Amino acid sequence: MNTVLWLSYDGTNYHGWQIQKNAETVQGILTKAIRETVGHEVYLSGCGRTDAGVHAKIYAANFKGENPVPMNKMPMALNAKLPDDISIKKAQAVTDDFDARFSCVEKEYTYVVHNAEVRDPFLRTRAWFYPYELDIEAMKKAAKHFIGEKDFAAVRSQGTPVKSTVRTMYECEVETRGDLIMFRMRANGFLYNMARAITGTIMYVGRGKLSEKDIPDILKNGYREEAGPTAPPNGLYMTGVSYDEVAF
Amino acid sequence: MNTVLWLSYDGTNYHGWQIQKNAETVQGILTKAIRETVGHEVYLSGCGRTDAGVHAKIYAANFKGENPVPMNKMPMALNAKLPDDISIKKAQAVTDDFDARFSCVEKEYTYVVHNAEVRDPFLRTRAWFYPYELDIEAMKKAAKHFIGEKDFAAVRSQGTPVKSTVRTMYECEVETRGDLIMFRMRANGFLYNMARAITGTIMYVGRGKLSEKDIPDILKNGYREEAGPTAPPNGLYMTGVSYDEVAF
Repeated sequence: MNTVLWLSYDGTNYHGWQIQKNAETVQGILTKAIRETVGHEVYLSGCGRTDAGVHAKIYAANFKGENPVPMNKMPMALNAKLPDDISIKKAQAVTDDFDARFSCVEKEYTYVVHNAEVRDPFLRTRAWFYPYELDIEAMKKAAKHFIGEKDFAAVRSQGTPVKSTVRTMYECEVETRGDLIMFRMRANGFLYNMARAITGTIMYVGRGKLSEKDIPDILKNGYREEAGPTAPPNGLYMTGVSYDEVAF
Repeated sequence: MNTVLWLSYDGTNYHGWQIQKNAETVQGILTKAIRETVGHEVYLSGCGRTDAGVHAKIYAANFKGENPVPMNKMPMALNAKLPDDISIKKAQAVTDDFDARFSCVEKEYTYVVHNAEVRDPFLRTRAWFYPYELDIEAMKKAAKHFIGEKDFAAVRSQGTPVKSTVRTMYECEVETRGDLIMFRMRANGFLYNMARAITGTIMYVGRGKLSEKDIPDILKNGYREEAGPTAPPNGLYMTGVSYDEVAF
């Protein structure tokens, strides 16, 4: 039996998704809750490795093995054992070869910047507070340069080695809503810190430290130091994850 | 010299507004930041006593004495010394007889209920999670009974003795926005726990434990036990405070 869980979490109090010794992680806490619920050891495969402080509006993870709890009762059974900054939204049975990580065909990340003169106490763990003037039109143009099949080596951090740094970005949009700026990025995959590095690079364009016209060369050259900085984790949300077999 | 500060705070990590020994309070933290900024002891008068966990989208407090910092620089000077769950939005000079507590002519509180089957990690300190069905139309009708000049003794907790339990409610509305229910209450003053007890009473109507038609008698009789429970603090926000002399 193979079960996929759709969940949401506020990453503020966690050292990211991936299980670690001596640190609270979402995978660690959730694995324990599942083990207590289904009555056996499980390996939980997650759709991505979010860093400490990064949030998930929606996230998918699967585990194999017997599951005596009816699927429609799983969210309530698990939520009763989970802290209230993690919430299971839905559970579904999937075919044996489904894997939340490897079966994923598309992901969406949204980065939120709070662009105002004075900080907002309610956004302190939810957005990057940025009290400087930004050229939003230049940022919108800059975002377009990240769309398509590209080598994203210039906008990632060194992490686990990957076979290729080429990914396909389907959508990369900068939108404003009041004093919030939302960066929406949808791709077939994201390299380590890629969403945050793209955000930091578009912000550099907004501040005039880079021109939107520089982006194609930065991507072509592939040097991390030519791009903008990695935006802080607290403004980043996983907002979508897609599979051929199932959907939230 | 008399200075009024307009601020906002996330009450999650505080034991309310009022200064206490051995507990972090907004008044305590802010008094210290002002003292360090203006260079002398100050008494900070706040527009109301919010409880532990209660939030303020907007709050007013004033202090007297020399203030060498220009008013337009005060927010930045104080915010540099304050934790990021408190934010000073604006500072203004006021006449000597202005007092944030006693000069207040009107206050608004908003209570937020999250009415959904599954909890939302991002609302855990921001709304009362209530996963049961509610009769919203009955709640809207119940709210209307709180409008006008009334004795609100039945919907308050015992606290500091007050001369009168009569207050005038100008507005008491129940509105829905997606799976959120917002209770907006505007009055010339609020008794201790009054906004939370009114919310709890309207929620009882929503659950069918009270009829909206019971409200006038509950208010007339004045017995706390006839009304609904006091709603938890984390869903309550001070959202407005009005004066004749100044405005945010």
